[in-house]
Amino acid sequence: MSDASQSNDALLRERAAKVVPGGMWGHLNATNLPKGYPQFFAKGEGAWLWDVNGRRYVDFMCAWGPNLLGYRHPEVDAAAARQNAKGDCLNGPGEAMVELAEALVDTIAAADWTQFMKNGTDATTSCVTFARAATGKRKILVARGAYHGAVPWCSPSLVGVTSEDRAHIVVYEFNDAESLAAAVAVAGDDLAAILVSAFRHDFGKDQELPSRAFAQLARQLCDAKGAALIIDEVRTGLRLDLSGSWEQFGVRPDLSAWSKAIANGYSLAAVTGADWLREAASKVFVTGSFWFGAVAMAAGIETLKIARRDDIVEHMDRLGRKLREGLNDRALKAGLQVRQTGPVQMPVMLFDDDPDCSKGNLFCSTALEAGVFFHPKHTMFLCAAHTDADIEAALQAAERGFAAVANQFQDA
Amino acid sequence: MSDASQSNDALLRERAAKVVPGGMWGHLNATNLPKGYPQFFAKGEGAWLWDVNGRRYVDFMCAWGPNLLGYRHPEVDAAAARQNAKGDCLNGPGEAMVELAEALVDTIAAADWTQFMKNGTDATTSCVTFARAATGKRKILVARGAYHGAVPWCSPSLVGVTSEDRAHIVVYEFNDAESLAAAVAVAGDDLAAILVSAFRHDFGKDQELPSRAFAQLARQLCDAKGAALIIDEVRTGLRLDLSGSWEQFGVRPDLSAWSKAIANGYSLAAVTGADWLREAASKVFVTGSFWFGAVAMAAGIETLKIARRDDIVEHMDRLGRKLREGLNDRALKAGLQVRQTGPVQMPVMLFDDDPDCSKGNLFCSTALEAGVFFHPKHTMFLCAAHTDADIEAALQAAERGFAAVANQFQDA
Repeated sequence: MSDASQSNDALLRERAAKVVPGGMWGHLNATNLPKGYPQFFAKGEGAWLWDVNGRRYVDFMCAWGPNLLGYRHPEVDAAAARQNAKGDCLNGPGEAMVELAEALVDTIAAADWTQFMKNGTDATTSCVTFARAATGKRKILVARGAYHGAVPWCSPSLVGVTSEDRAHIVVYEFNDAESLAAAVAVAGDDLAAILVSAFRHDFGKDQELPSRAFAQLARQLCDAKGAALIIDEVRTGLRLDLSGSWEQFGVRPDLSAWSKAIANGYSLAAVTGADWLREAASKVFVTGSFWFGAVAMAAGIETLKIARRDDIVEHMDRLGRKLREGLNDRALKAGLQVRQTGPVQMPVMLFDDDPDCSKGNLFCSTALEAGVFFHPKHTMFLCAAHTDADIEAALQAAERGFAAVANQFQDA
Repeated sequence: MSDASQSNDALLRERAAKVVPGGMWGHLNATNLPKGYPQFFAKGEGAWLWDVNGRRYVDFMCAWGPNLLGYRHPEVDAAAARQNAKGDCLNGPGEAMVELAEALVDTIAAADWTQFMKNGTDATTSCVTFARAATGKRKILVARGAYHGAVPWCSPSLVGVTSEDRAHIVVYEFNDAESLAAAVAVAGDDLAAILVSAFRHDFGKDQELPSRAFAQLARQLCDAKGAALIIDEVRTGLRLDLSGSWEQFGVRPDLSAWSKAIANGYSLAAVTGADWLREAASKVFVTGSFWFGAVAMAAGIETLKIARRDDIVEHMDRLGRKLREGLNDRALKAGLQVRQTGPVQMPVMLFDDDPDCSKGNLFCSTALEAGVFFHPKHTMFLCAAHTDADIEAALQAAERGFAAVANQFQDA
């Protein structure tokens, strides 16, 4: 690593710069990450990850969510391989589609039906289109700063976006009852849906669960207006509650968007919905060349089976709590104040008095050097393959990170 | 098959109807197909396909395009399995992304760079967004009736679509120079791009290659206006000319959208572009949870390698010609007039005097019964795994199909 210009990662970056705009697209461009982070990866196993320079990390990004049970999970991979030995994309779906749809309807409390796709953005976009088709209305309420995908109607960037792409988007403030009610009033008789993330996980900000009152208000407003309540579970799905992230509030959505973790890294997304949206969903034309591929569905069936069998939420919750408490103790001992927010299995840790994230970046770079892959601003993820030993390794690396921050910023 | 209510396919349809809106979505819903077509498939191998009732077909749909080299191609599957044994979606891309990008830039004449996605719709939508970002303009010219994907700006259905979704779409007639020039005039100073399929392959219509003059005019108009020429190669890519479908006209696009066949059925899409759009492409925020997965990229590398090594276009062309000539002979002998249009490796066959496609449906149902999977209205596909024996089997089945049509419609 000392001679970075000679590293495999540096060589691949040079080659990529010639044939891929900016070297890498979107959230995966490593130039957005702190110093020392690799761009290219060679291998994963369980909760561990190897970069192309041969360095191993205990990973708390989990492929930005998809790794739920562990990289290269033997049972999931075996189920996928068994299906692949018969076929993946044929001229239509296989039995796996029906089995997975039944398993999701059985697992997710609010689901009467499901439809499969490939991207989280496919799922959120389909939810919006289904809601408009079912209600005959147009306005979609979206929380300010929330991430729901990377196409013009919802992209966090306005580059290449026209104003018409967002003509019917009305913004409210997450967890703010007055703001939500005001946005509903703005939509008037044209309200198709309230779209809301299972919890607030905006990039670079403290995470925030909705209050029970806010969740219930969203439900009541949709009921009163005949609109659809859409929960974006793309990031959160199967990590908080297998039956749906808002079950804890006694609130069931009309539509939910799923992706990332539902097939443990195999490309799959889904919409689940309530009966009253079934006909509309059947009339909207949505499809994709690979949306019926049986391999990802076989992986999804196995992922759900294992998630239910092994009580993975409890496991991630226990280790997430251990990580959170350990980080808090070590930060305090180093004389630093950090804010850890969101569910413990999907943490964000931000430093106080750190407007440009230089403390967070230094912390992460130092931990990375010590073999632990954190992120300074984005939701991190625990998975079912993390062990107590991994958490202890993470806390040792964090101790070094906190020491570096204390050393550099104590007297600033 | 005689007791359809007891067939595996019928049982799966019953189960699917409960948990999937309409039993199946989009173009894959078998209720849109002629009598006797299965909804569910069990297995594929080479150019053959088995449904869940155990019936085998010589397949001319090729999974609606993705099957380029043969189902379960041993070399492609081995390359994918080797990658999967290391990892698929990790925290970023692997070396495979760079190798595949280099291979595409090397293969596709108009490509200076590439970016990967999952759906054909991802690719067409990204092209449009890149063109708008690069030009600062908004209008996109689209041929009437052309299929460019299944989201609101381009969906063939208006269910769930708002008028604003298409505010900046201007329609022209394919292969009609006057119409294209008029649409450019309508766009005025706001022209971002002309979007055009590599050839016209509208559902249920005769296919049509662009004239050289039309292709060149599209290029000239874009040059004159500083707009981007976008070719949608999602359906056509790697079947007409590995270096790009408009190379035959001496016309190079600024952006091309690829998917379906580029990884022989593994979920992958790509945009390739010219240098002047590179910076814009790097600034638009596009991404997806699985867009960097290394397994589909490894499959793509192997697919391209084999496509170049084995001269698959020549093979598909030779067998496609044999199929076309054979079908024509047999139709004439049965006293029927058919129109076979489009490139021979991507055929459509329509019957004269068949406004409701009842001749086409009967022909296809009869051929299906005889073990050959045609489509009455959609582009069909040859693949590199088709053999002379497959074409002969297809022609024998077609003979039965023509006889059935002649028998039922001769005296009508």
